[in-house]
Amino acid sequence: MAAEIAEQPAVWQTLLDQAATTVEPVTRLVDERRPRFVLLAARGSSDHAALYAKYLVEVLLGLPAGLVSPSTHTIYGARQDLRDVLVLGVSQSGSSPDLVRTLQAARAQGATTVAVTNAPQSPMAEAAEQHLDVSAGVERAVAATKSYTAQLLALYLLISRLAGRSHEDAQGLPTWGAGVLEQDQAASVADGFRTVDRMVTTARGYSYPSAREAALKLMETSYVSAQAFSGADLLHGPMALVDRHVPVIVIAGPGKGGDAMQPVLAALDEAHADVLCVGAAGRQAGRRPPGISLPADMPEELSPLVEILPLQQLARHVALARGENPDSPRRLAKVTRTL
Amino acid sequence: MAAEIAEQPAVWQTLLDQAATTVEPVTRLVDERRPRFVLLAARGSSDHAALYAKYLVEVLLGLPAGLVSPSTHTIYGARQDLRDVLVLGVSQSGSSPDLVRTLQAARAQGATTVAVTNAPQSPMAEAAEQHLDVSAGVERAVAATKSYTAQLLALYLLISRLAGRSHEDAQGLPTWGAGVLEQDQAASVADGFRTVDRMVTTARGYSYPSAREAALKLMETSYVSAQAFSGADLLHGPMALVDRHVPVIVIAGPGKGGDAMQPVLAALDEAHADVLCVGAAGRQAGRRPPGISLPADMPEELSPLVEILPLQQLARHVALARGENPDSPRRLAKVTRTL
Repeated sequence: MAAEIAEQPAVWQTLLDQAATTVEPVTRLVDERRPRFVLLAARGSSDHAALYAKYLVEVLLGLPAGLVSPSTHTIYGARQDLRDVLVLGVSQSGSSPDLVRTLQAARAQGATTVAVTNAPQSPMAEAAEQHLDVSAGVERAVAATKSYTAQLLALYLLISRLAGRSHEDAQGLPTWGAGVLEQDQAASVADGFRTVDRMVTTARGYSYPSAREAALKLMETSYVSAQAFSGADLLHGPMALVDRHVPVIVIAGPGKGGDAMQPVLAALDEAHADVLCVGAAGRQAGRRPPGISLPADMPEELSPLVEILPLQQLARHVALARGENPDSPRRLAKVTRTL
Repeated sequence: MAAEIAEQPAVWQTLLDQAATTVEPVTRLVDERRPRFVLLAARGSSDHAALYAKYLVEVLLGLPAGLVSPSTHTIYGARQDLRDVLVLGVSQSGSSPDLVRTLQAARAQGATTVAVTNAPQSPMAEAAEQHLDVSAGVERAVAATKSYTAQLLALYLLISRLAGRSHEDAQGLPTWGAGVLEQDQAASVADGFRTVDRMVTTARGYSYPSAREAALKLMETSYVSAQAFSGADLLHGPMALVDRHVPVIVIAGPGKGGDAMQPVLAALDEAHADVLCVGAAGRQAGRRPPGISLPADMPEELSPLVEILPLQQLARHVALARGENPDSPRRLAKVTRTL
């Protein structure tokens, strides 16, 4: 897991260098079809990458988007009118039967289908009209790290191009990522989570998928009951469970999503919550400077790639501090096959 | 909370009796517009009712559907092409500013908009073209109960009518609901959750929203870290955190969704998990009969209304067993205003 976390800036550089050959054919297909709706199909970490793509589609492309419930296809056999719909399947292995069947059904029902995977020879890549290779290389650790951020970047490169943007903004990513990884700020806070059984993670907007992914990493490697909520949903109920025994990780970057977390930080202060803030260097988050600082000059849409890095490191450090083996979590296999 | 839980069969009877006058005008509007895509906007318990509606839309109507991320409108000011889109806003109070603004923006961008609320005079009801009143009467407890199942029923009546179905199947609901409430099967199991801090709830298909809603009730009233996962997503990672200290509530009814939970029950058995199964009377769930039995003759699409009843009762019993006051959870207000 440590090796794969460290590889991420190099994986991003490869993706950026190859974008003209990997992303452009998919862009051309989608541009031709002019979809009016976008559906995303994914599970686990890939579902968080899909959620990130949903924000990009809604904000940058101006198209409505939704996350597929695969069971409507695989369990209930729903037949839908999917003309004018782009279906993006996102999966590291490209092998889970429910996602393969969802892509097959969508294609048969008129959708434009694209598989975003780390496995060009996979059944999902074959089921879709086009394949977008996230080119992360073989991933061995059960907890996905480099394949997750490679999915984020591949989806960003595709959707920003469809929105008529250049890829210039993204060129700084390998440098920002390498800087954050080298600092390893999580090492000094991990010990505080050694005996914690419950945790909340929260963010809004583009960073909400990062809160979900951080919670999943902590569940997978350290068996903590880590619950992710959008900042707004946290205030609609789950806020009741936050007390001194339930630390809260707040992701509040320099952009609009981070600004929208200020009322949530105020509510957490009022509840005397134990908060670790992942925020922009040099900025206050609520009443405090961030516990983990990120570069302040990243465009907000790209910060999910960088802000998850210290949280991957945190999950690994916490697992080690608890005597667990983050490389092989109990009861999990690398490829999960669900119907 | 107890009084409002008990009122539900009567609330449903009222909705069924009034359907011709409340549901039919909305059905006519939507039928005229022939939407090709459905978006749902909601927060908290209402978001679980929206998720139930998403399954109905995908399976019964054969249309793709998605849940709105309100922040794309309120934080990022996304402007979307929403022609041919039906946007359903679901909210007990009809007052949360982010949902009101989402409905306003959607209407301005060409969507057909319908507000499903318990407050005909609310800003959300005014923002939408049509209002569907869930007619639950004033709800005082912070933890929504009767307004939640009234939302489920109003959405069922609307979507099943749009799908050309009669409402005949739903006529049995008040009887099924009254029978389950009277049995109060949760009373005898609540004591086992007295000292529990972490819990998982899980289901698939139509019952997945029930797992989400049950987890939220337990968080709101008993401050338990209750995490809901679709059965498939549970196997994609969170399964690692399940052990004897994390009881699992499995909802596995008599239909296809319940059948699809059998591999999940097998995986839970293998992990020696502490399972409480909410299932159909007279049927095995995995290796055991259900701990809480539901009528075996309900259509699967309607079981979410009935299966949540014993789980509402469970949340209340657990709160009382822990010395908490389920009528006024700490740090929560009845109407949550988020931007």
